[in-house]
Amino acid sequence: VSPVLDGGRFAVKRCVGDRVEVAADVFGDGHDRLAAQVLYRAADAKTWKHAPMRAGENDRWSGMFEVDRQGRYEFMVEAWRDDFATLRDEIDKKFRAGVLAPIDLADARRLLDDTRRRTRTAGTAIAKFLAAFDRSSDSAERASLLLSSDAANAMAAAAQRPFRARSGTYGVQVERLGARYASWYELFPRSLGADGAHGTFDDVVARLPAIGAMGFDVLYMPPIHPIGVNHRKGPNNSLTTAPGDPGSPYAIGDASGGHDSVHAELGGIEAFRRLVAAAAAQGIEIALDFAIQASPDHPWLEQHPGWFTTRADGSIRHAENPPKKYEDIVNVDFFANEAIPSLWNALRDIVVFWASEGVRLFRVDNPHTKPLPFWEWLIADVRRRYPDVLFLAEAFTRPKPMYRLAKLGFAQSYTYFTWRTDKRGLADYLDELNGDEPRECFRPHFFVNTPDINPYFLQTGGRPAHLIRAALATMLSGLWGMYSGFELCEAAPLPGREEYLDSEKYQLRARDWQQPGNIVDEITRLNLLRRSNPELQTHLDVEFLNADDDQVLHFAKGPKDGPGAVLVTISLDPFNDRASTIEVPLWRWDLADDASVEVEDLWTGERFHWNGKRQYVHLRRDRPFALWRVYAPAFSAPPVTPAAAFGDHA
Amino acid sequence: VSPVLDGGRFAVKRCVGDRVEVAADVFGDGHDRLAAQVLYRAADAKTWKHAPMRAGENDRWSGMFEVDRQGRYEFMVEAWRDDFATLRDEIDKKFRAGVLAPIDLADARRLLDDTRRRTRTAGTAIAKFLAAFDRSSDSAERASLLLSSDAANAMAAAAQRPFRARSGTYGVQVERLGARYASWYELFPRSLGADGAHGTFDDVVARLPAIGAMGFDVLYMPPIHPIGVNHRKGPNNSLTTAPGDPGSPYAIGDASGGHDSVHAELGGIEAFRRLVAAAAAQGIEIALDFAIQASPDHPWLEQHPGWFTTRADGSIRHAENPPKKYEDIVNVDFFANEAIPSLWNALRDIVVFWASEGVRLFRVDNPHTKPLPFWEWLIADVRRRYPDVLFLAEAFTRPKPMYRLAKLGFAQSYTYFTWRTDKRGLADYLDELNGDEPRECFRPHFFVNTPDINPYFLQTGGRPAHLIRAALATMLSGLWGMYSGFELCEAAPLPGREEYLDSEKYQLRARDWQQPGNIVDEITRLNLLRRSNPELQTHLDVEFLNADDDQVLHFAKGPKDGPGAVLVTISLDPFNDRASTIEVPLWRWDLADDASVEVEDLWTGERFHWNGKRQYVHLRRDRPFALWRVYAPAFSAPPVTPAAAFGDHA
Repeated sequence: VSPVLDGGRFAVKRCVGDRVEVAADVFGDGHDRLAAQVLYRAADAKTWKHAPMRAGENDRWSGMFEVDRQGRYEFMVEAWRDDFATLRDEIDKKFRAGVLAPIDLADARRLLDDTRRRTRTAGTAIAKFLAAFDRSSDSAERASLLLSSDAANAMAAAAQRPFRARSGTYGVQVERLGARYASWYELFPRSLGADGAHGTFDDVVARLPAIGAMGFDVLYMPPIHPIGVNHRKGPNNSLTTAPGDPGSPYAIGDASGGHDSVHAELGGIEAFRRLVAAAAAQGIEIALDFAIQASPDHPWLEQHPGWFTTRADGSIRHAENPPKKYEDIVNVDFFANEAIPSLWNALRDIVVFWASEGVRLFRVDNPHTKPLPFWEWLIADVRRRYPDVLFLAEAFTRPKPMYRLAKLGFAQSYTYFTWRTDKRGLADYLDELNGDEPRECFRPHFFVNTPDINPYFLQTGGRPAHLIRAALATMLSGLWGMYSGFELCEAAPLPGREEYLDSEKYQLRARDWQQPGNIVDEITRLNLLRRSNPELQTHLDVEFLNADDDQVLHFAKGPKDGPGAVLVTISLDPFNDRASTIEVPLWRWDLADDASVEVEDLWTGERFHWNGKRQYVHLRRDRPFALWRVYAPAFSAPPVTPAAAFGDHA
Repeated sequence: VSPVLDGGRFAVKRCVGDRVEVAADVFGDGHDRLAAQVLYRAADAKTWKHAPMRAGENDRWSGMFEVDRQGRYEFMVEAWRDDFATLRDEIDKKFRAGVLAPIDLADARRLLDDTRRRTRTAGTAIAKFLAAFDRSSDSAERASLLLSSDAANAMAAAAQRPFRARSGTYGVQVERLGARYASWYELFPRSLGADGAHGTFDDVVARLPAIGAMGFDVLYMPPIHPIGVNHRKGPNNSLTTAPGDPGSPYAIGDASGGHDSVHAELGGIEAFRRLVAAAAAQGIEIALDFAIQASPDHPWLEQHPGWFTTRADGSIRHAENPPKKYEDIVNVDFFANEAIPSLWNALRDIVVFWASEGVRLFRVDNPHTKPLPFWEWLIADVRRRYPDVLFLAEAFTRPKPMYRLAKLGFAQSYTYFTWRTDKRGLADYLDELNGDEPRECFRPHFFVNTPDINPYFLQTGGRPAHLIRAALATMLSGLWGMYSGFELCEAAPLPGREEYLDSEKYQLRARDWQQPGNIVDEITRLNLLRRSNPELQTHLDVEFLNADDDQVLHFAKGPKDGPGAVLVTISLDPFNDRASTIEVPLWRWDLADDASVEVEDLWTGERFHWNGKRQYVHLRRDRPFALWRVYAPAFSAPPVTPAAAFGDHA
């Protein structure tokens, strides 16, 4: 049965309004006809609904159902021997061959009569049918009655299902659309103050219209909690601080409070509530950072020493990645003596607290270094209270732990996208994410930059590089994000490092949002195109197509059996204009290589025709991408595949 | 975990002496070191043995164990956090970086001491180590002690396994080699009589030396039971018989007995016993046909009417495939009123009876038209008494029911080979059989012909066609079979049908075994080559290689990491000599395209060198195949793959 993850251990994921296409191997011994259906329900519903399944090639049957609300659904497949269908086949064949005997009709009548006696639902209909059958004495007429839809309907209503077999019950986790399609904007509130002052949430409120106008619908902020003083970091991660240095917001907690407190200079909880309300009014959700780490000043150390593991000398181990040391951070031990259940509950309560403040999106810092069972428990527990809460995993680790976090409940995940810059690397990665298992659980979030990651490609490629990465992220993935400054093409690095110079993690940074050379207009347009073209609201259903230039990525978005597709062509070269022939997938609509299709340039709005499979495109550095909608002429559903592809020599 | 079939519902198959290569995804949260091992045992053993696993790419770990006797084995994978390995890494890194502190050594000592207190097996060794550790006061010396193999061995012996996780338990069905590698010869004993007389088992005994000399090790006979008289079929399947017509042996049973009786004219049970003994003495096994069908004269009809389903008029339904009718055969109904358990037991007892007569191979007629649960039960029950019994499924049906029968216990199966005659069809089919699931359960038996199947390719292609099919079957599959007459290139068909004219199913056929144009010598040589080249004793580990002629099939047999390979080239054209360049897979041994390798022509025995990847071969109609053994020069084990292919940006 598919879709199933790890034998049913985990639920597959869908969004509200999606279809779940179910397929199963259905076969039995002998040559009798079979029937099958999907049974499904919301997990809290009492009764099962059912959807028919049809046989395809090689004993593979398929059916589908729609999921229309958040939460867990369940489905199973059931199949049975369809004796009446077998009988109809036999009557039909014998009648055509002229060998139908009275005993055959008598056998058929007996099956109907037996069914009538067994059914609670269709007795009257079958009795009525049998009366008509008995009134006739003509074999041909009786055969034709048996083959009629009246007989089929009455017998179907009787729902007799000999040798019924059921699969296991499998789960579908249904989330809101924002789990798959959203555009995130990240900023440090403290940088938004006027004239070098420490910014507050009210300064963020003032920026909301500009962020919304660019087409973003999520505003994500690094930790907003009190920042430790002990071992506070100075500018550019230095070990020494000057008076007034704000410190890293990831060094969470001071004497005034920890993860459920707001850093005083940001305006306190009241200012945060004003921000949440103002954002909601403008269609923007607030996403918070959930970073389970503590500064040495965090109240936990005094209140819950039992949450920490001590060393041989009784001290608490600070974070380290030998030989590196992080003396400004201590980590809780999830399996320390007093950690279960009080630490786990306390962490859950932090999320619940912010959810009660209206937050439904949590970006989780390094979840892969915390216990996997902890996340499975926490996410399920939070969602029992707030079903629409979504978690984004910031897990830059190996593929299997990343996919595991997705299965455990993380709705979205950071990815390797940032380091995929060449044609082969991008196509292979998207193909992997579209593969059997990842597609059912893992939703990639394509960030073009983060406060931690200033990619070499952006450092060296200037404005065209920023346009290229924005186009790739917005066109390839339903989820994308940028950290402020990207729209101004800020990319000055710490020399030789993939990090920002004068990183906002350690200091305030004032910006001129109208700075010349910015790419605000392009980002706005890209986000708008995502909003009006559903094909661009997912990383699924992508097909990479031929472009004869190795620096030009060319792909189609949208289901292969759909009535059209969005074609996207993006240069990967920030230093030169590129030109390439590109392939139009005319074969999707059974068109000849020289056919003509109607095309809309989605950037310019022009409509025209393309003649033939090969087209030419020129990509300039000031707009190194192009995209079109191709309209399939006179679209019709694909022909039904013949069921029997294998001979039966028995 | 692999190898696992259907989540562990079915056991994978191996033969005595095989290795079971186990692989599993093993990962955890965080950066701690892990360890893993395979636990395995014969299912009737009390204790588990263990084999180490090593990490490969992408969190995939692997290990192996050998199975050395018949029956069911079990295995599981267990993994745990290896705290001592993590500690050693840390000590090592810090020591090299010059930042090792006394507290680090104190922590390390504490771990060892804690372990010493917990272990029942290694306390003394660890205590001895700690004494040495304490005697030293030098950090460098202490670090080096911690990194010594003494410390590693003592800690490994303690077998502390925090966070130990175990997979499910999975089955391996181990069968004797004959399940995978055997050469079957099929004949009708009744045709072996002198001067047109009805043959007996003693006539078969007289033929045994010739059959053995051809290299066959199994002699398979169609049903040997009494043949019904009622509706007996005449020559060429005619509905009328003349006196003396022997009838089809598949119409089983007459007044004298049924499935546990021997047809009187064959010499009775005593003659059968003489045959079994004579065959065994010559290294030939006897295979019987288990065909669950009855002539209308079978004793079952009188003794067990409750095993049959009656029609509306009380009569018993004869076999039919509408509009065709088979009035000479009636079928039991496995779910008839009185069928369970008496019919199922009676059928099981038939197999057990013949097993008690020394038969260990059963070819089962049309198993896919009998209930799948019946076979699973019967095969397991028979094997509890006779573990070395093997069943061959004659199921020409769709792939999934065929694979299911294999999973349920059939050791071998007839296949589509007979109808795969072109290069693409053959390669695709072998690739499918080498695929993930089939390779673990389905052993294909390549019959070149049967009494029922006289393939068009043989009908039209003459002697070269017979050589081609014999070469394909013997070289591609561990199991192959031929029905007598093939070695004489008999192929006269019923016009327009894929059947033999004057089929032995309905009449006796005397033969001249020395008939000119026979291919006895070639078959003998092919069987001999199979015996001396283990690569030819399985359908697994085949790789199709380039040959520039579309009528020439070229492939390598043997594991890709082996010290050599058998190369086989077979013409698929019975009408013309063929010539082709063929590819030598020098890349298997990391050799350049122009390298030289030592080669032995396995047909002629000549030894010589091939220079370069492309060689030329000429295949004549009188020997349309060639094969060589390629010897890898200075074979060495492949380099270990680096474990970490993914960056960890956490």
